[in-house]
Amino acid sequence: MKYASFLTPTGSSTWGVSIDGQAFDLGPTGLNLARTLRSAVEQGIFGELPASFRTAPTYAESDIEFLPAITDPGKIICIGVNYRSHQEESGKTEQKAPTVFTRFADSQMGHLQAAQMPATTTKFDYEGEMALVIGKEAFHVSEDEAFGCVAGYAAYNDLSVRDWQLAASQWIPGKNFPGTGGFGPYLVPAADLGDVNELTLETRVNGETRQKASVSDLYFTIPQLIAYVTGFTRLSPGDVIVTGTPGGVGLFMQPSGLLSEGDVVEVEITGLGTLRNTVELVA
Amino acid sequence: MKYASFLTPTGSSTWGVSIDGQAFDLGPTGLNLARTLRSAVEQGIFGELPASFRTAPTYAESDIEFLPAITDPGKIICIGVNYRSHQEESGKTEQKAPTVFTRFADSQMGHLQAAQMPATTTKFDYEGEMALVIGKEAFHVSEDEAFGCVAGYAAYNDLSVRDWQLAASQWIPGKNFPGTGGFGPYLVPAADLGDVNELTLETRVNGETRQKASVSDLYFTIPQLIAYVTGFTRLSPGDVIVTGTPGGVGLFMQPSGLLSEGDVVEVEITGLGTLRNTVELVA
Repeated sequence: MKYASFLTPTGSSTWGVSIDGQAFDLGPTGLNLARTLRSAVEQGIFGELPASFRTAPTYAESDIEFLPAITDPGKIICIGVNYRSHQEESGKTEQKAPTVFTRFADSQMGHLQAAQMPATTTKFDYEGEMALVIGKEAFHVSEDEAFGCVAGYAAYNDLSVRDWQLAASQWIPGKNFPGTGGFGPYLVPAADLGDVNELTLETRVNGETRQKASVSDLYFTIPQLIAYVTGFTRLSPGDVIVTGTPGGVGLFMQPSGLLSEGDVVEVEITGLGTLRNTVELVA
Repeated sequence: MKYASFLTPTGSSTWGVSIDGQAFDLGPTGLNLARTLRSAVEQGIFGELPASFRTAPTYAESDIEFLPAITDPGKIICIGVNYRSHQEESGKTEQKAPTVFTRFADSQMGHLQAAQMPATTTKFDYEGEMALVIGKEAFHVSEDEAFGCVAGYAAYNDLSVRDWQLAASQWIPGKNFPGTGGFGPYLVPAADLGDVNELTLETRVNGETRQKASVSDLYFTIPQLIAYVTGFTRLSPGDVIVTGTPGGVGLFMQPSGLLSEGDVVEVEITGLGTLRNTVELVA
């Protein structure tokens, strides 16, 4: 089942599921099973819909506006240099521990919303990644217990303002501009996906493949990441871990593959759909 | 006027002002001028109390439990290596741009609450700092406008789990353990303080002075920090910028001045009071 957060055709914020191009409205403007998709995760409704969900009002998917899959995560934890191919291109081969940084929720946007390139950069870049959403309170979780804490998965584009990211040792500024964290289109329950290690991630710019990797290529695995992160902070339902990007980012291409106004960036992951955002220059 | 967030003697969360050792309850269990101190800032009540505040119920300050000055900031922005004395001891002398990292709100604690040293560290350290709280929506703010965005100031102890901080290039893990962000005891309106550059910050461990600096020694000034941060993210009332720590942290002392169970750490800033936390070992 493919869940999404979205605006209805009249502009109200809601969430629901998408089946055969029809979006079922399960949020406040529809069946009201929960206020937000994050609430649905918290309340255990996500992945466990009552059969009555089919009585909900529906819209053609082409008439809704996708929002970030979770609009209001309490914590967005991002993992850096977590594919060997990206470690090699960036010259960071020794990783004793995961590289962890954060995003604020207001840096995110949904599928088809603009990727906002700020006027103050000359180095705007894509990073296709797989994100996971936490399903229950998680603190000091062992690797064995880790998959039991995952509600679902989605595609993510960790768009990076490289000059601001690399202006000092810590990357936060270049990772938190508005409209730079693409998240969606869908959040898919873990139970619907089988082995996530068999999923393939591909990033395209204007149709050209830039990144391609198997989730099994992750350097620190999903259980290792969850164990590490919950070793220092408590995670709650709706929190997000963005697991890292493979080699092929624009910054390290020869010649440069950085983004320009009007470029269309797609992140496609098996079973999770294709996240598409067009680069728009903002003041 | 000294504002604080606190638990009443019966354990309810509220906020108020402290005068001559008496805490006036202006929150939900008292006069209910606003739900939280953050709400009071949002609503313009902070620094502009009606004279009727003196009719509020009061408690002896010794009977309340201090909470972080703002319990629920939307964003906590921390600045690294922002005093020349700390740049020199840490070998990071060239700073082209501010070093920015973040804390989650649940890493904070109030005055007299425990500084929680995790069992997984051998390198627990203090960082005395001055924090500012934002008073209004702020995005793309110029240096000239910056002081107009500040509601007030407080002492902060950016306690750092050095082994987790320095295990990878990004510091987030070592800066986000629960009970490591001491904030308070008081939030003091900017208008009550005069020139913040004349304030002095001092950090003591078991009474011994470890850090001492003038706020005028900040490498990137408060207006520069606000202009830089609002260049990439929108700040809102109640958001916090923690401005950086001077030289004298435990990590670089010879012999080491790192913290042990039972150590008492104080951060005192002229006019803002003394933030005191005792180190407690947690599993």
